[in-house]
Amino acid sequence: MTATQDLIVPSFDDEVETDRTLAIICSKGSLDMAYPGLILGNAALGEGVNVHLFFTFWGFDIITKGRMEHLKFSPVGNPAAHIPAALAPVPGMTSMATHMMHKSLDDLEIPEVPEFLEIIKASGAHVWACKLSADMNHLSEGDLWDGVDGIINATEFIEMTDGAQLLFI
Amino acid sequence: MTATQDLIVPSFDDEVETDRTLAIICSKGSLDMAYPGLILGNAALGEGVNVHLFFTFWGFDIITKGRMEHLKFSPVGNPAAHIPAALAPVPGMTSMATHMMHKSLDDLEIPEVPEFLEIIKASGAHVWACKLSADMNHLSEGDLWDGVDGIINATEFIEMTDGAQLLFI
Amino acid sequence: MTATQDLIVPSFDDEVETDRTLAIICSKGSLDMAYPGLILGNAALGEGVNVHLFFTFWGFDIITKGRMEHLKFSPVGNPAAHIPAALAPVPGMTSMATHMMHKSLDDLEIPEVPEFLEIIKASGAHVWACKLSADMNHLSEGDLWDGVDGIINATEFIEMTDGAQLLFI
Repeated sequence: MTATQDLIVPSFDDEVETDRTLAIICSKGSLDMAYPGLILGNAALGEGVNVHLFFTFWGFDIITKGRMEHLKFSPVGNPAAHIPAALAPVPGMTSMATHMMHKSLDDLEIPEVPEFLEIIKASGAHVWACKLSADMNHLSEGDLWDGVDGIINATEFIEMTDGAQLLFI
Repeated sequence: MTATQDLIVPSFDDEVETDRTLAIICSKGSLDMAYPGLILGNAALGEGVNVHLFFTFWGFDIITKGRMEHLKFSPVGNPAAHIPAALAPVPGMTSMATHMMHKSLDDLEIPEVPEFLEIIKASGAHVWACKLSADMNHLSEGDLWDGVDGIINATEFIEMTDGAQLLFI
Repeated sequence: MTATQDLIVPSFDDEVETDRTLAIICSKGSLDMAYPGLILGNAALGEGVNVHLFFTFWGFDIITKGRMEHLKFSPVGNPAAHIPAALAPVPGMTSMATHMMHKSLDDLEIPEVPEFLEIIKASGAHVWACKLSADMNHLSEGDLWDGVDGIINATEFIEMTDGAQLLFI
């Protein structure tokens, strides 16, 4: 087992149920910003933390069938991607950057997004879709990944996160 | 009342005062990233949660007169906007994408940003402007939306958020 | 001492040790998004709060030697930067925008990123590098800023932040 793998497949041997809850709002739908919520949620589950993932705004793509398998990474506007600003919008650059990121993730044995969602769902994560985002995208439950627990509005999200640690990604 | 409307006009019938506090740091000034703080803050107010909104960095535009009415949405660098990377920087694309987002929000009866700020202020939100951002923009209280409670620095923000749930948008 | 300086050099005269902890995940590597974590962390330290900074994803650049001194600001895709979308990707625009931001920060006596890191480290901040990001960048401890306390994985980050207030930047 590599050093990286233990990020992805946490050991549950020493899992102790806690009353700690981590609620992660996933608002970005690019390939690079899909991973922080999955990795942190996965790590928290491995520590016995209750995890809620709430997919909203651009992050709705991460749980939408036909989109979740094809998230893209754009280096445009991100100087930390170290691609010259003049090159970044060139046709084909998004495809190339996305391809390179997939390879980089694969080298570290990090699962693709749909597989990663299956893993954290199997580990007990609660997965929620935002009602407003569903309405804006004209999508309903049938359009979403089967692991989604339900479509909820912001009020319901607030109700279920009393006492939780929050992250907005 | 539509399903979406109850995101915007929460019922206060069952409001119970709690000691729960949600403090939202709004650091982005684009039209799309102005809404998450307003929607989540609004929902929290409806549940009796104390809400602080702290506008800083690029998010300072959201409470600046003459700018708050004209926030723009750019699809550049956001692959989840589903506009080809090569088209996104074309002149007029920001205006077109902004226009389409306004229409999409309007269809769901979601208020424009200035009106939305009025609503959450009337519901008891505390609205703060960041001192450093004011200095960087060479702006003072007269340049800001009338609903701003004051200009505070990061130290004051830390002091008032002891025990709060935090979000950085 | 100017009004802005007290954001940067908090008074420790009235510091009271608390059991409050603030853990900030720094995931962006652009010059503008490097500062929120440093400024909020610095302010929290001044109030006696325990501060953990976790540098991950694009934010890994902020603690990488040879990169941390040259963070760039790109106005591309950020309409709040008020640079026309058609001009933003022009060659030289990133350099010019970065230069202007450095000047603006310098006018307010805000330290450059490496100096700012030294200040908050001297004030007691815990600085962590993400294992997965190190692997993706093919970097090890010798490549990182000397002030880094260690390279940790997401599980270790979750373990050390039980009860903390969290921010994802």
